[in-house]
Amino acid sequence: MELGQHISQRYNEELEDIRNKVLKMGGIVESRSENAIKSLLTRDTALAKSVIGSDTIVDLMEVDIDDDCIQMIARRQPAAGDLRLVFAVGKVITDLERIGDEAEKIASYAKKLAKKKAVGGMHAELAHLSELALQLLHDTLDAFARLDDQQAVTIITKSAKINQEFNSLSRLLITHMMEDSGNIKNVLRITWCARSLERIANYSVNISEHIVYLVKGKDIRHANIDEVLSEYFDDENHALEL
Amino acid sequence: MELGQHISQRYNEELEDIRNKVLKMGGIVESRSENAIKSLLTRDTALAKSVIGSDTIVDLMEVDIDDDCIQMIARRQPAAGDLRLVFAVGKVITDLERIGDEAEKIASYAKKLAKKKAVGGMHAELAHLSELALQLLHDTLDAFARLDDQQAVTIITKSAKINQEFNSLSRLLITHMMEDSGNIKNVLRITWCARSLERIANYSVNISEHIVYLVKGKDIRHANIDEVLSEYFDDENHALEL
Repeated sequence: MELGQHISQRYNEELEDIRNKVLKMGGIVESRSENAIKSLLTRDTALAKSVIGSDTIVDLMEVDIDDDCIQMIARRQPAAGDLRLVFAVGKVITDLERIGDEAEKIASYAKKLAKKKAVGGMHAELAHLSELALQLLHDTLDAFARLDDQQAVTIITKSAKINQEFNSLSRLLITHMMEDSGNIKNVLRITWCARSLERIANYSVNISEHIVYLVKGKDIRHANIDEVLSEYFDDENHALEL
Repeated sequence: MELGQHISQRYNEELEDIRNKVLKMGGIVESRSENAIKSLLTRDTALAKSVIGSDTIVDLMEVDIDDDCIQMIARRQPAAGDLRLVFAVGKVITDLERIGDEAEKIASYAKKLAKKKAVGGMHAELAHLSELALQLLHDTLDAFARLDDQQAVTIITKSAKINQEFNSLSRLLITHMMEDSGNIKNVLRITWCARSLERIANYSVNISEHIVYLVKGKDIRHANIDEVLSEYFDDENHALEL
């Protein structure tokens, strides 16, 4: 029994180490995303350059955490319930790494756009979409830190809002292209940035789905969202508020 | 010893079952991708509709295979080397599922585009990019079926070609938008399809990286590609041919 407790204690410590590493990786990815978006909105070439090519640390962390997960399973041989958690961590870090890639893409376009004449009239919309995407990423990392499955479900419901915003910005970009066909290339660059923002939001939603799975052991990745919501919220208005 | 062999035999059987399920899932995803692209190129609304909303089976397979992996680890408690394989399978199926999502996006745009006047003059380029992306997906599934890490590495080197083709098509699309600004919305839809094709290729490359990892136990996801190539090909020309 004592040995059992000892193993369990060591297991929990190793799990905590892995969780801390994921949080550290998440913090770096969030900061890179913030800087990429800031460089786009403020046309700051130096900031954009600082984001480009500096994702080696994120890449290495993904490999390192994967290895930690495998070593821990091999040593501690956890039961199916705990394995689910470790498996979910493996998928969370892949999505985090890809958010980092999207940040890099935004910074690359920001660098190109900063050299050109500003495309006017859509700054507010782009800033709004950026804010939504960054908030979703932040809330996701927060939900992971606290293993808060209720917050993770709330994030999943918010993703529809992001898609609406993206569609609305897309319409604006099309209007711009039609009115100023000489500037299509730059408007298209902004379109790619908007697409990357949408993808950052989508990856955050994927991570939130993994969080619900690792907390509840329930796979909601492809479940009916209404069923999931009705399970989480007694009061229907709660979901409608979002 | 006999017991050990027995466990190992059962382990191999279960691993083989999982591998067969992944191949089946891959076959479905490949066929969905082919149909989506065919519906786009031939403006076939019925075919596009058959792809849209029919990905439930792929979603369920992802959940099912994940569960098989976890149950097998819990029962057989494989060593770190074999765990790497199972962990890689978990990531392969996530990428397969996302290829299925991109196929669905292409089919949705195909359905919309089939109702509009055809956008002329880029069919050959779009068909060429489609062919490259589908070939990359096919070769990737083939490399997984045969656990052929050398083929997987070859696929990784081919991805640069896809990105070149995508950029070349993008330039053509921009020219089209500038010349026919009344049709920007439809050209943009084709642009989104091209982006999805590029993503199908990128996900295939991700899967190929997982294949090298699961065969060799070496994480090449973020390794220097030149180092990886020099390890695989003595003859430098081999890489240059691609």
